[in-house]
Amino acid sequence: MKRHGTIGVNERGHLEIGGCDAVELVREFGSPLYVIDEDLVRQNCRAYHQAFIEGIPGGEVAYASKAFCNLAMARLVIQEDLGIDVVSAGELYTALSAGADPGRIDFNGNNKTPDELRYALESRVGRFIADNFTEIQALDEMAGSLGLRPKVLLRVQPGIEAHTHEYIQTGKIDSKFGLSIATGQAMEALTLMSKKENLDLVGIHCHIGSQIFEVDAFAQAARIMASFMSYARDSLGFPLPELNLGGGFGIYYNQNDSPAPVRDFAQAMYAALRDEMGKLSFPLPRRISIEPGRSIIGNAGTTLYTVGSIKTIPRVRTYIAVDGGMTDNPRPALYQAKYEMALANKMLAANQIVASVAGPCCETGDMLIWDAAMPWVETGDILAVFSTGAYNYSMASNYNRLLKPAAVLVAEGKARLILRRENFADLVRNDLMPEHLLWNQGKQWQKLTLPEGEAELTLPEGKAGSALPEGEAELALPEGEARVE
Amino acid sequence: MKRHGTIGVNERGHLEIGGCDAVELVREFGSPLYVIDEDLVRQNCRAYHQAFIEGIPGGEVAYASKAFCNLAMARLVIQEDLGIDVVSAGELYTALSAGADPGRIDFNGNNKTPDELRYALESRVGRFIADNFTEIQALDEMAGSLGLRPKVLLRVQPGIEAHTHEYIQTGKIDSKFGLSIATGQAMEALTLMSKKENLDLVGIHCHIGSQIFEVDAFAQAARIMASFMSYARDSLGFPLPELNLGGGFGIYYNQNDSPAPVRDFAQAMYAALRDEMGKLSFPLPRRISIEPGRSIIGNAGTTLYTVGSIKTIPRVRTYIAVDGGMTDNPRPALYQAKYEMALANKMLAANQIVASVAGPCCETGDMLIWDAAMPWVETGDILAVFSTGAYNYSMASNYNRLLKPAAVLVAEGKARLILRRENFADLVRNDLMPEHLLWNQGKQWQKLTLPEGEAELTLPEGKAGSALPEGEAELALPEGEARVE
Repeated sequence: MKRHGTIGVNERGHLEIGGCDAVELVREFGSPLYVIDEDLVRQNCRAYHQAFIEGIPGGEVAYASKAFCNLAMARLVIQEDLGIDVVSAGELYTALSAGADPGRIDFNGNNKTPDELRYALESRVGRFIADNFTEIQALDEMAGSLGLRPKVLLRVQPGIEAHTHEYIQTGKIDSKFGLSIATGQAMEALTLMSKKENLDLVGIHCHIGSQIFEVDAFAQAARIMASFMSYARDSLGFPLPELNLGGGFGIYYNQNDSPAPVRDFAQAMYAALRDEMGKLSFPLPRRISIEPGRSIIGNAGTTLYTVGSIKTIPRVRTYIAVDGGMTDNPRPALYQAKYEMALANKMLAANQIVASVAGPCCETGDMLIWDAAMPWVETGDILAVFSTGAYNYSMASNYNRLLKPAAVLVAEGKARLILRRENFADLVRNDLMPEHLLWNQGKQWQKLTLPEGEAELTLPEGKAGSALPEGEAELALPEGEARVE
Repeated sequence: MKRHGTIGVNERGHLEIGGCDAVELVREFGSPLYVIDEDLVRQNCRAYHQAFIEGIPGGEVAYASKAFCNLAMARLVIQEDLGIDVVSAGELYTALSAGADPGRIDFNGNNKTPDELRYALESRVGRFIADNFTEIQALDEMAGSLGLRPKVLLRVQPGIEAHTHEYIQTGKIDSKFGLSIATGQAMEALTLMSKKENLDLVGIHCHIGSQIFEVDAFAQAARIMASFMSYARDSLGFPLPELNLGGGFGIYYNQNDSPAPVRDFAQAMYAALRDEMGKLSFPLPRRISIEPGRSIIGNAGTTLYTVGSIKTIPRVRTYIAVDGGMTDNPRPALYQAKYEMALANKMLAANQIVASVAGPCCETGDMLIWDAAMPWVETGDILAVFSTGAYNYSMASNYNRLLKPAAVLVAEGKARLILRRENFADLVRNDLMPEHLLWNQGKQWQKLTLPEGEAELTLPEGKAGSALPEGEAELALPEGEARVE
């Protein structure tokens, strides 16, 4: 296993993160538990800040909050002076609630609803990344109706696709995202946007893939975008001052992964831009943005599980079942993602067995890790899976009615809860009960009381089972809802 | 498209479910919207009741609640006189909260935690389906400490695997579930269980796969289980009176699927059992259980979406983006599942185009349907995806901070909300804010107020930014938590 950030082993032979003993964390906060290494998050933020904001004239970094988004994470990013990239009203709500500067929020997404457009406009988000003609039309109309003129970039497909260790320059234009340079649709959209009086067309955006290690893929994307900006100037009659090169910077999940330093990406992208812009006699963009998500939070997250059932099938395989799985980390099931692990309470023990780590869901695909070497495992051991900061909590479900884990932020020996573990009341908090379902066969009312003194199912007044009343019996729930109206 | 249950087309040319106009449902309840056809749920429950409970001596049906579980659904199942199969404390909590008879609850799962075992024991669930040696040991100890002696079945691997239209009799014993007959581990576990004084060993359980159409696969499983029961009697010296043949009955998703009637499964299973038991001179089990989930709720669910962005890439593909996707229905992304669809407001229009239906997530895999024939589509159309009752809501996530949809139960022209749409307050309801994250660069406190008059972030008294206080500032949240202690 690779030791990211503050990960270490203490004198008890236990895994330590942020100076906290992982075994003690589980004792205090239970499991599964997301542990976020505050120092590493800040270090990653600072690496991007230095490389792109300080290192590149007009450079900007917007944390792609879809990787991991809650109030505390948004505060960390704000404290580290990064912007925020949001892809929904929910992410925008979270960023704004955390006090983000709306002007440094980018709003991405292939299908922004009218409610979302209105909410983002009223919140004065800094930039919309328009994806398609439908959105251009809707945004222009909505902005006009509100008397606003938002800055807008167009998401284009540059014809580069990059994933992990390779990239291809491709004519592939079959994507739900953006409009292709190659088909002419991107230029067509820019022309349309330039004529919309309620849109302030400022630039173009691309996103070439995810979990990318090839520095040259970004440099190549920068060249293509530069060339397209020059072409667009000639067509539009004015230059576009802003360029957003998206995200997708790869991280280490396992020994097959070898990410380059952030500054290498920054320098390669900027050098390519300068070179291409020079050739084209085109001024460098006034603003050059990127959108890292995974590479800021991914390695900073570790998930701690407690080992439950152990099953050895002779001459076949040993299954180590833990108390979480595809519900808190769907990536192995969705993408066959491979993670590294360790036994947090046996960090100094030698590997003795090869076993696979299963989750508790009634689903064959609920596996976290296949065939990993590990020390002798016993029920009650604490199993750590590394680099789970990105796309774990954000993709978590309640499948099998499992509860979403708690999350703690650890630093300098202190653990601070930033996400409370879900409880049973959370599972039913939005349930409503139509009254006709409350009859039992014997024509008796079923009095429904949630166990353990919980939120009682309340029925309308005076309904004692003599007649079938109209309406619905609601769960007693807290007042107040915030919606996009 | 196949018209399940009460699905029809009304005089306005709109999709109708349970006598409700689907377009009106979206107008009233918003989208995405899960629509549950109450009559079809009840009809499916009754088909199982008739075929297995009334049709087979000792027959029992436990609804596999992992397919779709909330309070209203549990009430429906209870009203229809079925038992409930749960796989977690959360499902058990839901079933009990809905007033289920604990004696008709089966508790399945490959990794029941100590908290779950205790909760289930204290709730007096009817049967535990023990999965492995770890659980046998833990359950015996926990039961002993509580002075209880629960009924227990052992989950065994019969050596049959069935999926969709084929099944194989296999020596495959590499599974996280159960213990294999072939390796001898199943018999070893039964012997161990028979000696545990706090366990009432009553039978064996198997589950041969999911989405199975082959009646003969279940008949074959029944034969193997019968044969093993006979062998176990000889080894144990006493007969096991209960047999649970699990679930996995297939449903229609698309034209490749051709499910057999429930009674065919029942009769084939029972005939095979009678035949085999006759040959072996072994009495028929006193209790013969099955666990259907998908086949009760799957076809009864329809998801309604609103069409947003439409993108036609000339000579390549048209993408129709709707306001939900992998967050409310992860099955296409997870299993490449294929669904049928229709435009709810254009049911009488002829198909004119072939297009693909995309979700709003910033993720290439967020696609619902590829290349379906449909009428001319416009932004604002209501798109219905059919047979989404099972493993949609139950697997739903908040990826991209999207809100989980509402669900309505429709019957006889009435729509009753059984699940309230999530709101922004739900997204942050478990967020906590460590105080050191509240400083801004200028050493000023950031006052965090959730927009729209929502739950305000409360800070401890007297913290006006003069010093960095200890502890945490919590979101004001409703009191009360129900946990498994």
